[in-house]
Amino acid sequence: MIRTFTMQTSRRDEMIDITDRVREALREIGAHGDGAAIVYCPHTTAGIAVQENADPDVKRDALMRLDELFPWRHPKDRHAEGNTAAHMKAMLTGTSQTVLVQEGRLILGTWQGIYFCEFDGPRTRKCHVKWLADRS
Amino acid sequence: MIRTFTMQTSRRDEMIDITDRVREALREIGAHGDGAAIVYCPHTTAGIAVQENADPDVKRDALMRLDELFPWRHPKDRHAEGNTAAHMKAMLTGTSQTVLVQEGRLILGTWQGIYFCEFDGPRTRKCHVKWLADRS
Amino acid sequence: MIRTFTMQTSRRDEMIDITDRVREALREIGAHGDGAAIVYCPHTTAGIAVQENADPDVKRDALMRLDELFPWRHPKDRHAEGNTAAHMKAMLTGTSQTVLVQEGRLILGTWQGIYFCEFDGPRTRKCHVKWLADRS
Repeated sequence: MIRTFTMQTSRRDEMIDITDRVREALREIGAHGDGAAIVYCPHTTAGIAVQENADPDVKRDALMRLDELFPWRHPKDRHAEGNTAAHMKAMLTGTSQTVLVQEGRLILGTWQGIYFCEFDGPRTRKCHVKWLADRS
Repeated sequence: MIRTFTMQTSRRDEMIDITDRVREALREIGAHGDGAAIVYCPHTTAGIAVQENADPDVKRDALMRLDELFPWRHPKDRHAEGNTAAHMKAMLTGTSQTVLVQEGRLILGTWQGIYFCEFDGPRTRKCHVKWLADRS
Repeated sequence: MIRTFTMQTSRRDEMIDITDRVREALREIGAHGDGAAIVYCPHTTAGIAVQENADPDVKRDALMRLDELFPWRHPKDRHAEGNTAAHMKAMLTGTSQTVLVQEGRLILGTWQGIYFCEFDGPRTRKCHVKWLADRS
């Protein structure tokens, strides 16, 4: 009931549309009915978001603004790896998103896509999709 | 198992208490037992939060402080619609909230209410309520 | 199907590793199979996060950076209790986290732990753990 897919990210900060991969995972699980899907990121410097899938500039602006809020170098940081900013972005974006499923189809808003948010790439990353069926 | 309600928001930034509408949706669904409810926003410039339901100044301060963090106009924004700030606020607040239900009743903390957070109003908005019953 | 545990926090801002307490709650519930656990905070000035469990400096840096984004005193705040900053941190961190369970075991990433995030301590706090079993 958990399906895991992997991806290779290519930049330090990147929002990757994984909507189709979530759909594919649900098909592989055999999620034909009603329920919910949990899209879960098992990393601490990446997160999952549901956001706009139309204008790519929304993602570009979002990553730019997050970078302003959480500058990569901060004089008071102590974490030896130097990627505190990535942890902050992941923490506020969220480790997972819960999306609705009806008759096996994702119920997303017109402009919504599901995004894997890389904040410390490039890396090879995993994403879990968990299916919770309605009790009949 | 999904119930959708609509609302008309009246300002650009606004936190609307939807706790009673979530309760009503659960009644209409016939959620008498134990489980969880997912309150889901199908928009990309609005979100759902669980926050303080006592002093309205908490909401006022929250919207004011979010506006400081994410100014509406930003010299580096490229998104043509000009509402990147609303997308940011929605992304960090969250697209959905999961709340607990016992014997058909929402299990909220003493000071908690469920809020629809409008960040690019006024608009007509939708909210989905999904009921996940415990397997008996 | 809901298990509640309490804790005493000791500072104003603090991230407390509750991973073992969540595991204990799942054992007490008798969660042997597959499903998901919702870790829910019934307070409005504290939240739940899934974050790095290795270097404690990540937590220290995170609390320091959140404090910079949301200074405790703000000249425009109106909330009489004076803890708007704590509400903001709670709102953006999130009221709950959903974690995956397989054969009764939490499926966390290598570096992930579950944290109760105190933003207005010290206080006595509660945390709910809700078990949602897969429908067999």
